[in-house]
Amino acid sequence: MGLIVQKFGGSSVANAERVMNVAKIVTDTYKQGNDVVVVVSAQGDTTDDLIAKAKEINENATKREMDMLLASGEQISIALLAMAIQSMGFPVISLLGWQAGFSTNSVYSAARIRKINTDRLKMELGNKKIVVVAGFQGLNDKEDITTLGRGGSDTSAVAIASALQADKCQIFTDVDGVYTADPRKVKNAKKLQEITYDEMLELATLGAQVLNNRSVEMAKKYNVELEVISSLNPIPGTIVKEVAKMEKMLVRGVTKDTDVARISIVGLTDVPGIAFKIFSKLAAKDINVDIILQSVGRNNTKDIAFTVSKDNAPVAIQALRDLPFVDEDLPIECDTDVAKVSVVGAGMETHPGTASKMFEALYNNDINIQMISTSEIKISVLIDAKDADKAVIAVHDAFLGA
Amino acid sequence: MGLIVQKFGGSSVANAERVMNVAKIVTDTYKQGNDVVVVVSAQGDTTDDLIAKAKEINENATKREMDMLLASGEQISIALLAMAIQSMGFPVISLLGWQAGFSTNSVYSAARIRKINTDRLKMELGNKKIVVVAGFQGLNDKEDITTLGRGGSDTSAVAIASALQADKCQIFTDVDGVYTADPRKVKNAKKLQEITYDEMLELATLGAQVLNNRSVEMAKKYNVELEVISSLNPIPGTIVKEVAKMEKMLVRGVTKDTDVARISIVGLTDVPGIAFKIFSKLAAKDINVDIILQSVGRNNTKDIAFTVSKDNAPVAIQALRDLPFVDEDLPIECDTDVAKVSVVGAGMETHPGTASKMFEALYNNDINIQMISTSEIKISVLIDAKDADKAVIAVHDAFLGA
Repeated sequence: MGLIVQKFGGSSVANAERVMNVAKIVTDTYKQGNDVVVVVSAQGDTTDDLIAKAKEINENATKREMDMLLASGEQISIALLAMAIQSMGFPVISLLGWQAGFSTNSVYSAARIRKINTDRLKMELGNKKIVVVAGFQGLNDKEDITTLGRGGSDTSAVAIASALQADKCQIFTDVDGVYTADPRKVKNAKKLQEITYDEMLELATLGAQVLNNRSVEMAKKYNVELEVISSLNPIPGTIVKEVAKMEKMLVRGVTKDTDVARISIVGLTDVPGIAFKIFSKLAAKDINVDIILQSVGRNNTKDIAFTVSKDNAPVAIQALRDLPFVDEDLPIECDTDVAKVSVVGAGMETHPGTASKMFEALYNNDINIQMISTSEIKISVLIDAKDADKAVIAVHDAFLGA
Repeated sequence: MGLIVQKFGGSSVANAERVMNVAKIVTDTYKQGNDVVVVVSAQGDTTDDLIAKAKEINENATKREMDMLLASGEQISIALLAMAIQSMGFPVISLLGWQAGFSTNSVYSAARIRKINTDRLKMELGNKKIVVVAGFQGLNDKEDITTLGRGGSDTSAVAIASALQADKCQIFTDVDGVYTADPRKVKNAKKLQEITYDEMLELATLGAQVLNNRSVEMAKKYNVELEVISSLNPIPGTIVKEVAKMEKMLVRGVTKDTDVARISIVGLTDVPGIAFKIFSKLAAKDINVDIILQSVGRNNTKDIAFTVSKDNAPVAIQALRDLPFVDEDLPIECDTDVAKVSVVGAGMETHPGTASKMFEALYNNDINIQMISTSEIKISVLIDAKDADKAVIAVHDAFLGA
């Protein structure tokens, strides 16, 4: 018994049957004596459909009007879920983002939550109502609707859990937890009972799209215990918290990311500050650079290579071309046929053999490593895209057992 | 030049092309130097689709949640229209009902506007913005979304026009004005340049579904000049105002209403207060009674007949059966094969020959009159449904020329 925040994504409320399924989960939790706040996203493809409607009329509509448009999606979901809960005979009320007290800044389409005024939430919970809140949305100080950007409903849920000091924030999704690798690809992938915030952040960054990163960062900052759990099969999922049981695992997971482009410039004249100028230029264009490799070439030249997401590659190349020290005839190569494979685990920092064990597994499978990047809890390698699935299985087998 | 409120219904914004058409009308008005507030309804069938979604989940959802659901429809329309206006290069902002300052009472699904706080509207107009407002919706004093009921967007528009003391409130629709009869049925029907509020009210009540009645009542009360005008062909339409030019017309229009049921009880024992008891019982059931006919029957009995709308007929009959003085075996007849044909015109009160001219036209066409009802500006007759169209043409020809 306590206060539980439950978040359901768009696919969990995509149609009447699924809405009823969510209502069942929510009311079961309430029946066990808990106070329940439910955060929901827009149904299924609603957001995409609304975006398509907007584009038909104006490709360059202001974000203020886009937010006005998109916020209607969650409004539909909360009303329908409240109706479903009513049909089961439970007291319930739906609240829009602003009614639930979400104040944000004015960065439309990517607003940050400033604070949550919990008066209304507490009043409704005090009346023993199940409270259904529209995720993804808030109100700025002009009293205009804002949205938090894609995946924002996770953040809404964590923010409410933090503001109300909830006992747990359950993120319902279409997988039943966080796995050591993609279970559709790696047959021996194991579900984790617990994982730390930092590990979850690394996994999310690496393409395991279970939780929105901002929501994990916020959960870490405010120490909100998260649970990743399946809405179709709500058995215990994976708990995300500050300190996780180690379960004798050196690494928590193996992931691949194929949304990677490798850009290289070979033969830059070696003058001081080259790397600084390149990467500050890219930062100014809002391009996230991941793995960076710099080597001294021949004849007082330097080679620099780095990875960006595929859709950032053209902008990155243009940015490089605009630099005064990048000669017109200097070749800039872009390879999009690459993948990043990573192992993540807080246990790694105290086990020096991790990197070599990973490299050995790749070598045994004839997989060539193009670039390497390491952090305290992660080792990533860049390899040919065609080898990615094979590499994940090989590395997973090496660390987590065949 | 002045301040103009323009209202567009759901069919006027049903798709991208129509939204662009509305944007054209609005920006043309703005270009002429006017301040413009636009009130829009939900697109096309959006409201019906949302109701269907709700019914799939819960046939008996609370009206509070229905209003939460339905208000999303106008939210989509205002955002899309604002985007369309942006695409034409004009300054614009969309506002939800509550952002536009609509305070209502708490009768969900049929809320009444209490007041409009015009601060935000005035600020945006002061910034020379076209202001697009979601019709049909407001906020009660619990800060919950309410809706004004079907046709509520007309009321929203008139309320804004009144609150801002607008020079004109244009109601755009799919007809280009108010006609002396349904132009699809009566080939000589003429468009009226002007009509009084009272005449418009009678015509609306009688089934000419051009304007929502509450909006006309409000326009009359606050002396807001209305114009009924076509969104597809925005030439001058029909002006609705307190005193209209007479244009030498005795009557303004001839209408028919086929949503009528005639209920009769024959042979009630004549005790005092029978009529009072019958009609107060019906009023308690929220049933609007229109034409009433009471006659003394034989042997100290009374016959009472009255008309109600078709969907109210079963409830009305049950209510009669529940009365202690209505014997079980007393026959209650219900005839739904009837129609009401009416002539409306403020000029009628000073022309005693109107009724006889109408009856003559019907007699010449072999149409039998079942019931008659008159007011200062209206004469209605109840006839067989099969004669309705013939009657409208005959009466229209008699008064308004073949």
